[in-house]
Amino acid sequence: MENSKVTPRTLPGFMELLPDEQILFNEMKEIIRNSYEEFGFLPLDTPIIELSEVLLAKAGGETEKQIYRFDKGDTDLSLRFDLTVPLAKFVAMHYGELSFPFRRYQIGKVYRGERPQKGRFREFYQCDIDIIGDNELNILHDAEMPMVIYNTFKKLGFDDFTIRINNRKILNGFFSSLSLNNSAEVLRIIDKLDKIGIENVKNCLAEINVSTDSINKIIDFISITGTNNEKITKLKSLNINNEIFSKGVEELESVINAVRLFGIPENNFVVDFTIARGLDYYTGTVYETFLNEYREVGSVCSGGRYDNLAEFYTDKKLPGVGISIGLTRLFYKLNELNAVRFSRESIAKVLVVSASSDITPCLPIATTLRTAGINTELFLGDKKIKAKFKYADKLNIPFVVVIGEDEILNNTVTLKNMKTGEQFQVSIQEAIVILSKS
Amino acid sequence: MENSKVTPRTLPGFMELLPDEQILFNEMKEIIRNSYEEFGFLPLDTPIIELSEVLLAKAGGETEKQIYRFDKGDTDLSLRFDLTVPLAKFVAMHYGELSFPFRRYQIGKVYRGERPQKGRFREFYQCDIDIIGDNELNILHDAEMPMVIYNTFKKLGFDDFTIRINNRKILNGFFSSLSLNNSAEVLRIIDKLDKIGIENVKNCLAEINVSTDSINKIIDFISITGTNNEKITKLKSLNINNEIFSKGVEELESVINAVRLFGIPENNFVVDFTIARGLDYYTGTVYETFLNEYREVGSVCSGGRYDNLAEFYTDKKLPGVGISIGLTRLFYKLNELNAVRFSRESIAKVLVVSASSDITPCLPIATTLRTAGINTELFLGDKKIKAKFKYADKLNIPFVVVIGEDEILNNTVTLKNMKTGEQFQVSIQEAIVILSKS
Repeated sequence: MENSKVTPRTLPGFMELLPDEQILFNEMKEIIRNSYEEFGFLPLDTPIIELSEVLLAKAGGETEKQIYRFDKGDTDLSLRFDLTVPLAKFVAMHYGELSFPFRRYQIGKVYRGERPQKGRFREFYQCDIDIIGDNELNILHDAEMPMVIYNTFKKLGFDDFTIRINNRKILNGFFSSLSLNNSAEVLRIIDKLDKIGIENVKNCLAEINVSTDSINKIIDFISITGTNNEKITKLKSLNINNEIFSKGVEELESVINAVRLFGIPENNFVVDFTIARGLDYYTGTVYETFLNEYREVGSVCSGGRYDNLAEFYTDKKLPGVGISIGLTRLFYKLNELNAVRFSRESIAKVLVVSASSDITPCLPIATTLRTAGINTELFLGDKKIKAKFKYADKLNIPFVVVIGEDEILNNTVTLKNMKTGEQFQVSIQEAIVILSKS
Repeated sequence: MENSKVTPRTLPGFMELLPDEQILFNEMKEIIRNSYEEFGFLPLDTPIIELSEVLLAKAGGETEKQIYRFDKGDTDLSLRFDLTVPLAKFVAMHYGELSFPFRRYQIGKVYRGERPQKGRFREFYQCDIDIIGDNELNILHDAEMPMVIYNTFKKLGFDDFTIRINNRKILNGFFSSLSLNNSAEVLRIIDKLDKIGIENVKNCLAEINVSTDSINKIIDFISITGTNNEKITKLKSLNINNEIFSKGVEELESVINAVRLFGIPENNFVVDFTIARGLDYYTGTVYETFLNEYREVGSVCSGGRYDNLAEFYTDKKLPGVGISIGLTRLFYKLNELNAVRFSRESIAKVLVVSASSDITPCLPIATTLRTAGINTELFLGDKKIKAKFKYADKLNIPFVVVIGEDEILNNTVTLKNMKTGEQFQVSIQEAIVILSKS
């Protein structure tokens, strides 16, 4: 069956980019990584495969259904579905070897067997940072997260984005003061405020038997507007008498003050009492981030504070705070919207080509350029010079160095700028200076 | 069952490093990546999961037994076991969208369910480059591979390494000239030369019924010694009359000449007619690389030329040449042998700490340092100053900036060099200058 070929194809829901887009994707990953390292986060790289027993210690419901789980020999294995559970495992395993607060970043692929649809991926990169305390963790760490978000999205080329900050204790304390027994449902309705409007929120709340008095208080609560300071003042004036609520307000004020001290401009963060981020995981500060020109992308970076990272593995109390960027989806969306602001067009800065059929004189030239720190590709195919220029063009390589008989005689190279079309015969040293500068 | 914990553990055969080693591992990966990019290789990042039908189009034997294969729904999936098959799939799928010669690098994890043992991994990084031609590929590309190997291992801090180069056509042509019908077995015996010596090679060959005349010729062939040029001269003087053999010698000479033109020192490469690298895959030039001080590590970078990358997916003829570094095993071995030559000790260059209980004055200082491009960690825990210095020490952070009442009054910072113990009160600008330089 010599000629029966297998059709080459990639699974739906798995991103596989052509090189020009992969260059851009990698650039984005690098910017995020450098931003995380700027804040002193330490790298981790945990396995993609874990024992199901370990990975699913906590999971249930949706997660468990989506997981890639299989046996190898008689071992029950699963692919990680996030980077938080592996972190919990790692910290519990290596508690005695780590220095706390333990700051780690991890950028890696995770797997969720979701129904594939446009912009939804089954294999995708998460870019996570977390700070884990040993028994306690200063509230000021909660202010580091917005600073990392701010720094990262500025470096990705964005200015007009808003980090929304809340504290779950405010919501929890408020609901507790109303003696609601269905706060999860209430939260879900509030969450739709932007979509359905105030009146519909009222109706929905009435439908699940929230008292008129409570509905009015909820509407007062979610209708608070103004500057960040005004919002906190108005919140206090609601006179809600609940310890958890008061603790939440106090924490939020500390975080907001610290966020200002870090230097985040006032227009890049807002206090938003309605955001909740997952119903049972976060226990304090929570974050969402929106690109204001591209609201349809949804939150591009979210996270929050949790009381106990690794309770399924250890009795140690390990409070933490963290954020995550879903890189694969974000890249896909930005690309689709033509909203990629950073750029990197090529790997090689220069293509060295021969003007004659003898290519060998190009070899030491390429080495000289590389030794000077210039990414250099050598064209070794037996093509006409025009085809060689076309190749550079297709790969967006900004310069071509041509070596012909003339250049060999004069001990020069011809350097062509592919964008302007200009070309000069210069010494190799001059070429290096020009290439290094541009 | 509040207190029934799951024991946190990582699967055997899966590398999971503590942060100080992970920093070093990542540095190694970065050096390799930068070296590959210096030669203009384009990045690819293919999925870890593929359709089994696609991934196993060619595989058989050992590979198939080791593979991680499972069903998700009614789809038969496998984890990639190398980066070559995904490349073949990719090139066959995207043939019309690529520019040839197509130069790609991929650095990623692959999976083989081998019996776990010390230094053997089931999940490991491969760092691959390949150059794929459309129907043809100039032999000079075969000389680029040793140049990349040379550049990479120099940057990893090694000087004393040897790239062994051969051409499979020489071996194939030579065996063909002897009319051997069991050349695979003969190769396997020759391969043991270093271990068992000439006499035992003779005996083994006799045992598999190689004629005395052929044995003598084989011994002459594998006994060739001298400089690279002397070896080729002696090889020619064997007067082997076989077209494939002659073609192999011609190719090898071209490669060796080009390797010299690239500037690889003569003591970093040797012609070695006995290396074969896999019995049926490579068809021309082949490479192995040894660190001479650490021969026990085995070949640290190998590869070669093949006639047809993607014959299981397409009728197009796609010759290629490539090399691969098994990063995980190499890092493990170098670390074990204390042979890591490159270094990176910390992510943060400076830890900012408060000398008083009010930490807030440190926040804008941290932002100022980061804005100046200095990786800065902020210590926000409520600890004694001694504990803060100890934290910096444990994380190998080379500098600490201390902010106390005195510094706030004088608008200065105290900068402490953690290695020398020296400390100075300087302006923040002076601190930036010192930190940027060191």
